Amino acid sequence: MKPLGPIPAGYPAIDGVLSVAGRPVTQWVEQAGDTPLFLYSADLVRARVAALRAALPQRVALHYAVKANPFAPLLALMAGLVDGFDIASGGELEIVRGAGLALDKVSFAGPGKRDGELEAAIRSGVTLNLESEGEARRAFAIGEKLGLMPRLAIRVNPDFDLKGSGMKMGGGAKPFGIDADRVPALVREVVASGAEWRGFHIFAGSQALDAEAIAEAQGHALALAARLAEESGVVLPHCNLGGGLGIPYFPGDTPLDLPLVGERLAERMDDLPEVLRDTAFCIELGRYLVGEAGVYLARVIDRKESHGEVFLVTDGGLHHQLAASGNFGTVVRRNYPSAIATRFGHEVEEESSIVGCLCTPLDKLADKGGFPRADVGDLIAVFCAGAYGASASPANFLGQGPAREMLV
Amino acid sequence: MKPLGPIPAGYPAIDGVLSVAGRPVTQWVEQAGDTPLFLYSADLVRARVAALRAALPQRVALHYAVKANPFAPLLALMAGLVDGFDIASGGELEIVRGAGLALDKVSFAGPGKRDGELEAAIRSGVTLNLESEGEARRAFAIGEKLGLMPRLAIRVNPDFDLKGSGMKMGGGAKPFGIDADRVPALVREVVASGAEWRGFHIFAGSQALDAEAIAEAQGHALALAARLAEESGVVLPHCNLGGGLGIPYFPGDTPLDLPLVGERLAERMDDLPEVLRDTAFCIELGRYLVGEAGVYLARVIDRKESHGEVFLVTDGGLHHQLAASGNFGTVVRRNYPSAIATRFGHEVEEESSIVGCLCTPLDKLADKGGFPRADVGDLIAVFCAGAYGASASPANFLGQGPAREMLV
Repeated sequence: MKPLGPIPAGYPAIDGVLSVAGRPVTQWVEQAGDTPLFLYSADLVRARVAALRAALPQRVALHYAVKANPFAPLLALMAGLVDGFDIASGGELEIVRGAGLALDKVSFAGPGKRDGELEAAIRSGVTLNLESEGEARRAFAIGEKLGLMPRLAIRVNPDFDLKGSGMKMGGGAKPFGIDADRVPALVREVVASGAEWRGFHIFAGSQALDAEAIAEAQGHALALAARLAEESGVVLPHCNLGGGLGIPYFPGDTPLDLPLVGERLAERMDDLPEVLRDTAFCIELGRYLVGEAGVYLARVIDRKESHGEVFLVTDGGLHHQLAASGNFGTVVRRNYPSAIATRFGHEVEEESSIVGCLCTPLDKLADKGGFPRADVGDLIAVFCAGAYGASASPANFLGQGPAREMLV
Repeated sequence: MKPLGPIPAGYPAIDGVLSVAGRPVTQWVEQAGDTPLFLYSADLVRARVAALRAALPQRVALHYAVKANPFAPLLALMAGLVDGFDIASGGELEIVRGAGLALDKVSFAGPGKRDGELEAAIRSGVTLNLESEGEARRAFAIGEKLGLMPRLAIRVNPDFDLKGSGMKMGGGAKPFGIDADRVPALVREVVASGAEWRGFHIFAGSQALDAEAIAEAQGHALALAARLAEESGVVLPHCNLGGGLGIPYFPGDTPLDLPLVGERLAERMDDLPEVLRDTAFCIELGRYLVGEAGVYLARVIDRKESHGEVFLVTDGGLHHQLAASGNFGTVVRRNYPSAIATRFGHEVEEESSIVGCLCTPLDKLADKGGFPRADVGDLIAVFCAGAYGASASPANFLGQGPAREMLV
């Protein structure tokens, strides 16, 4: 048997069935009409935000990275919980327009912003995190054309990375942001342009489970921000310290020590250099806010044996759960946390593989896991499905189409 | 510099610009309205089909695997060129309904067919390639309920694999098809049910570039079909020999020796065992028919330098070209064939990386390739984009949406 990832806290069984928000998932599936279904728990999102508010120093605001999950009801919930949104495209700008958060609380990062996207952002009062000198000049020109003062921050390509992160965003040549040594000149150019100067965005990596590594990266980010602010000779109104807080996906992963992250950050905040004394700070989280609050449910359509191995063939698959299938950003495939939702908490009875309905060997949701016996009609669950699930998967592959989604 | 995959034949330059169907791609982009754009060449598809017809023995029919590219105009073209379609879902059944090919020329394979999909297929006269005994019994019951005679074939999980194939579909425990030793009993059960018995589907692997390996797998498939037909004691009306013909994607890949594949298959056809004398044969190809006929075009939005490296940031990315980004079914990322389309055929002037507009380091279309210098406004091209491109990528990731597509 191959090990499965750890099932997140907050998912009790009711009469042997996985439950979300106090009801067995069978009831939610009935209400949704069919499988496959992404279920997102509002309570688990609220609990995570509350834990962050309790752990983080008050001075540090909390932003949500919409790319993690842009499902409209979730954004509406989040608008009442966080202090800002970060978007990554003009498409996401349209998505957040209706969510109920003022657009001046929105920032837009992304290395390839088209002129039309810059214009829409400037018209809406969204802060642009500038990714290059070229983009800065396009933004100046568009602001001038519109007679509007753009809100401009600079995304810094930091000279350090986040150790142990699943995805490094700094520490070398990168398409993201502007190399630190060129930042002060651009700060002065932004200020001279008459734009509203909004500060720095410093993102070193994502999906780290080591609190000390996150604390170290935050320390580096603060030191870099201070140095660049001093070299610029311009007050730093705001600094987005990035995210990086990871969730356990794989066997052996352990949850991040969030209180320790908060403690270390509070220490830094109490010891800020003079140049950052009046700077407002935020951290920007996606996966950490919503990842563990989502579960993906699919139904077993066939139970097959082949050469002594058991395959549970479901109506879901990699077209909704690309990352769980091991085909998105991972080199070696490992099992996400998964379970037989209709026999939740039962003991392991056999080794089986949960596969999707696609006609490709890539479509595997759990490889040779230890599960209770499941039959046609049972529901399977893949956890950690709240972030980078539905929107980060090829929904139309093999003519399948998107899954249902519900916030409960 | 890292090497790039080989650019397929059939893409001349016109005045230094990549051309498709006799016109520079700049004109096609203008006609399409914007980038990113998938351009599919009808001429290149026709040429590939003609080459196959010339190489393959007449007795072997040619089927198109719709999953490779379900773009409606391409299906309409293909309907006039091939002898059948293979579909992989009820969604694809709806897609092929309007393409102009009679539905009795369509077969449906896929390990997780829902009851509704079985019913739609049986109503339409589509042949079901049965993937398990359980699916067979569901099909019998649905046929009986509808008062219709289902057309049923059996997908065999072969006891051999296709050597050197990019994706193995046989040779061990698999969720696809029925283990060979259980097939004869199911054949008899199908025939006894009163269904129309349609024969075998034997698919050993895909994306092989070695003609002898393909010939060997076809030989094994024929031997297996003969053995299973004899053991079943039932005449074999039809046998789908699968596909497996690959195209060169990566540095060092060389095109398949198609005439040799045809020659070897002709030898086998001339030497068939008695039990297969009246069997009709087909091969089922997706990627080989359309992969090299497609090119993906994106526009350079930013030219950035970071720590001495050049990044061409485009308005395209992995949301349209997941496989080219190295995130679909590959362990080690290698470069697809790509080029600066607006300086096509120019000499190499610098090392640059072509990246997409997504805010993730995964979004890389060409890593440290040797290209002519490109600037903002230039078009880049990724080749081999005709198969498993648009429909196999997460189009809505980061709010981006699908690319334009044109058959020209």
